[in-house]
Formats: sequence, structure tokens, C-alpha cells
Amino acid sequence: MAFLFVLPTWPADVWKTAMTKVAPDLDVRIWPDMGQVEDIDYAAAWLPPSGVLKGLPNLKVIYSLGAGVDAILKDPTLPEGIPIVRVNDDDLTKRMTEYVVLHVLMHHRQQQRIDANQARRIWDSFPTHAASALSVGIMGLGVMGQDSALRLRDLGFRVAGWSRSRKAIEGVECLAGVGEFDQFLAHTDVLVSLLPATAETDGIINRTNIQKLSRKGPFGAPIVINAGRGRQQVDADILTCLNNGELYAATLDVFAVEPLPADSALWAHPRVTITPHTAADSNPEVICAYVHAQIKRHQVGQPLVNLVDRARGY
Amino acid sequence: MAFLFVLPTWPADVWKTAMTKVAPDLDVRIWPDMGQVEDIDYAAAWLPPSGVLKGLPNLKVIYSLGAGVDAILKDPTLPEGIPIVRVNDDDLTKRMTEYVVLHVLMHHRQQQRIDANQARRIWDSFPTHAASALSVGIMGLGVMGQDSALRLRDLGFRVAGWSRSRKAIEGVECLAGVGEFDQFLAHTDVLVSLLPATAETDGIINRTNIQKLSRKGPFGAPIVINAGRGRQQVDADILTCLNNGELYAATLDVFAVEPLPADSALWAHPRVTITPHTAADSNPEVICAYVHAQIKRHQVGQPLVNLVDRARGY
Repeated sequence: MAFLFVLPTWPADVWKTAMTKVAPDLDVRIWPDMGQVEDIDYAAAWLPPSGVLKGLPNLKVIYSLGAGVDAILKDPTLPEGIPIVRVNDDDLTKRMTEYVVLHVLMHHRQQQRIDANQARRIWDSFPTHAASALSVGIMGLGVMGQDSALRLRDLGFRVAGWSRSRKAIEGVECLAGVGEFDQFLAHTDVLVSLLPATAETDGIINRTNIQKLSRKGPFGAPIVINAGRGRQQVDADILTCLNNGELYAATLDVFAVEPLPADSALWAHPRVTITPHTAADSNPEVICAYVHAQIKRHQVGQPLVNLVDRARGY
Repeated sequence: MAFLFVLPTWPADVWKTAMTKVAPDLDVRIWPDMGQVEDIDYAAAWLPPSGVLKGLPNLKVIYSLGAGVDAILKDPTLPEGIPIVRVNDDDLTKRMTEYVVLHVLMHHRQQQRIDANQARRIWDSFPTHAASALSVGIMGLGVMGQDSALRLRDLGFRVAGWSRSRKAIEGVECLAGVGEFDQFLAHTDVLVSLLPATAETDGIINRTNIQKLSRKGPFGAPIVINAGRGRQQVDADILTCLNNGELYAATLDVFAVEPLPADSALWAHPRVTITPHTAADSNPEVICAYVHAQIKRHQVGQPLVNLVDRARGY
């Protein structure tokens, strides 16, 4: 039995070291040095080159390294019938929650304005508002969205969530489906996307939807935080809305093209915060421990958890 | 019966408007226009000039506008035997918690570094750590300290607290008294002060104590966040420790002299974040509603809550 990492865009040696640390007896291989492909029962991948996974005749499970599985599903030769397990451990969830809470608070407390004042040695008080004056709307109420919602709720924000199937979270208004989307947007001062990348969510953060967001919040125009996938935002629409006052500010962790090209106007916009797709970093050791525990479960016939529904796309 | 505001450094008309809104029938006066001083049963104050409160013969209760009561207790003519009530409502607590959580997260997630990268259009990933790698130590476990501790705990940080009398908070290591202070410091990567201003806490954030903080955290040197009182920090020691590597970074909301003088070296230090004493703003309407509810309780003989112990100093 062997385990294969397929990580063409990541430092695979770091991952091999981490996996060897948590599972010293495991035969760990790194694509393209696969050895006898018949040996490979399990593979963990991120952006696998077309044909690699299909070429493993005895593959039993594919592990997607990262909560988003679009990097796996985009492989046109992805072998059918092999279960895909999404890594969704507590470490990753907590890191995403940190990010969402941090950036909601930075907007709420106008930290950019305070930083700019500091640079000019200006001691300025300005009217502030309680967290309860701000409605945060989270698109995507999976494990991550639910955890972010709870922590924001506990800080006093009004929190709503929107998802495909309706969830129930105490103290959080849960809306669902296409039919309630406009209602969700109309309630939202700060829109947070934690959606997976699917055909339905592509371009969802566009001018039409931004115009449907609440204008009743303390800043008079809404704020967008995208920690989902870059394909969800229409960069040109975000810039248009920022410049014409339809959007107050944006925090963006993900982009259609990454790294974000140096000539993008987003970099220098005074009300845009750019983070380099680090909202929820994968910690190799934590992720490897999770994958290894799943392998052991599978080997003794226990059911896989966090299975991806390929038709749904997440 | 009349109610008096003594707010020489604040916009008193804003406060009169707020109090009149929540208590339309109350006879609200603003120092120095006190009218017949015999009428005045209740007064709310911040930095009252010496002798003003002493000159009110029928004063029954003094309300301190703000969680810190040092601005009242420093009046050398403060009449003895009159109860002082500290305003400590949920709105103020939640705002302080927002501040503490925001600034702990900004350090934890290296937001200053990310902002600096954005200014230079640099897409840079760097090693990050989970919240559980960072120990936050809160000095002062009153209502505010306890709320901050709970919210940081829920985000995954290791949290300890230190107070004069021992508290019990689930999931938070509670240390107490002078005898356990060094142990508390040795465990702490991020020191947060929410202490009241007393003789014992003056200058507590000095080089000797900074040197006792943990150096085992992910940044190799500790971080200080002071949202207590400015007298607690020795500015020169903070600068020395930042410059010789004994301190990694600092966020300061309070200063011995406010506004912070324009020539202070703290303004321009690259690892110092300055906020203009706005960690927990008093919202006049919320505070007035709290004070008015307390007056009504007192008038029907119910006991006062949040009474200040003058000997203890908070």
C-alpha cells in the first residue's frame, strides 16, 4: 500500500515530511515520482494534472487538500466512482473564522481610518456604533460558515446566513435557496462569501447583487468580504461599485487569477483590503494527521466522512 | 429633584439631549449652570473640577460615566459617604471585547505585514500559526476582562487571566494576586491590560515586567495591548523594548497624556498601533438609560449595583 501526493503548485517535500512525521510506516510518494502505480491506494491532491489520478488502477480514495474541492473536480479525466474526501478539519475551520471575524471587525471599527490617522499623528474620535448596528450576511453555511456565524453572533453582530438547503443556527437568521436570496441580500450590511466554487456561484458577487444589499447600515453602503473563491467576484463590478458609492469597502482573499496581477486596480484602491489567499491556510501536519486518520478508518471498513457530492460540486 | 452632568471635557449638550430622550420628565442640568444646588439629588461626572460635587448638599449618588472611575476618585474634595456607581453596561463591555478581539487577531494574523505588502503590490504567503499557538494573558478579570476572555477562548486562543481576587472561568487559566503575577507573565505571549487605574497598577507595563513575559510564542517576543489606563504603561520602556527586541509589537489605546502629543515617538514606530482612547466608547443614550434605570431603582429603595469601593480604587 502506498500514498501519493499530487501537488504540482505546492512544496510537496514539506507535505511528505509532515506525512512521514504523523505516519512513519506509510509509503509516501510524490508525483511525478510515483514508482509502481499499482501500489497506490490513496492519493491527496491539489490541482492534479489531467490524467494523473486516472492512471492509478487501484486508487480507493482521493483526498482534497483544502476545503474547496474545485481544484480536484476541474480535472476532466477525474476517475469516476472513486470517493473524494474533503479536508474539513477543525484547524482549517478555526482559521477561516479568525479571518472572517478579523475583517468584519476591521470594517466595523474603521481600522483603516485609524491607521491613516496614526500615519499623520492625528488623534481623532469619530462616531462609532455597536456591533448590533451591523448585519452580517454569510453566504455558505457549511462547517466554516456556521462557525463564523456563531462567533460573530457572540460578539453582538446581527447575523444571517444563506445556503442551498436550510440550516438552523440559534440566534442566526437562516435563509435558503434562490427564492430567499434577494431577501437575504436586502438584510445584509456586510456580505461574507464562504461559498464553494460551482457553476451556480460563479460571478455571484456582481453589480446586480451588490445593488440589492442593504444601504441602511452605519456606513450607508454595503461591504463585501470574499473568502470563498475568486470566480465568485466580478472584479470590474466591485471597482465600479466602490467608485460610484454602491459599495463602501471590500476585503478580498481570492481572485480569478492568483497571484493577483500587479497591474490590478484592486491593489491600490483605498477601500480594498487584499490578502493573498491565506484566509485559511492548510497546516501540513494537521492536515496529514486528518488524512491519515481517515485512511485508517477506511482500511478497517468504517465509512468515509466529508464525502464530496460530485454532482453538487462540493 | 434634579440631575446634574459634570463633564468639563465632554460635549455636555449631547449628554443632556440623550438623557432628556430617555427621561423626558427629569430636570437635567449641566455644570456650571447648576441652578439651585439644593435640588440636585443625582450627578453623573467625568473629571469633575475640584469642589463641584462637594458643593451639592443633597447629593445622594454619583455616577461615573465610563468603566474606569479614576476620573472621579482623583477629585481631592470628593464628598465622603456618597455612593459612587460605575457604569458598566453590556454595550460598553461588548465594545471593549470587540477591541480586544480585533487587536489580538490583527497581531496573530500579521495584518500590518499584509497591509504593507498590499501597498507594494506584493502577493506573499508566509508561515502562519493556529490561534492555539498563542497564549493571551488578560490583566483584570472584571466584567470586561471576563467577556474578552470567553470570546478569545472560543476563537481557539489559549487564554489566562490575572486579577486581585481569583475568578473561575471555564477554559481560562485564572491566576490571582501578587504571588502568581510572575507565573502569569511567564505564560503570556500577548498581554492585554484591562486593569483599573490604581496605585498598584501604575507603571505595571514596564521593562522589568515585559522581560518576564513569554518568549516561546510564534513571534519570539511578546506583544502588549493596553486598553486599561495610560498610567499603566511606561512609554519609554515600551520603546526601549520594541527597539531591542524584548517586545515584538504593541497596541495602545490609552496614554498618560491624552491626546498623545504629536512629538511622541510611539506614533511612528512601525510595530505600534495607536488608537485614540476609543476602545470602548460611551454611547450617551445607552449610558443615560442605564443611569436613569439606576436612579429609579434607588428612588424606590432598591440597592445600588456596581458600587465603587473607594479604598480599593475600582
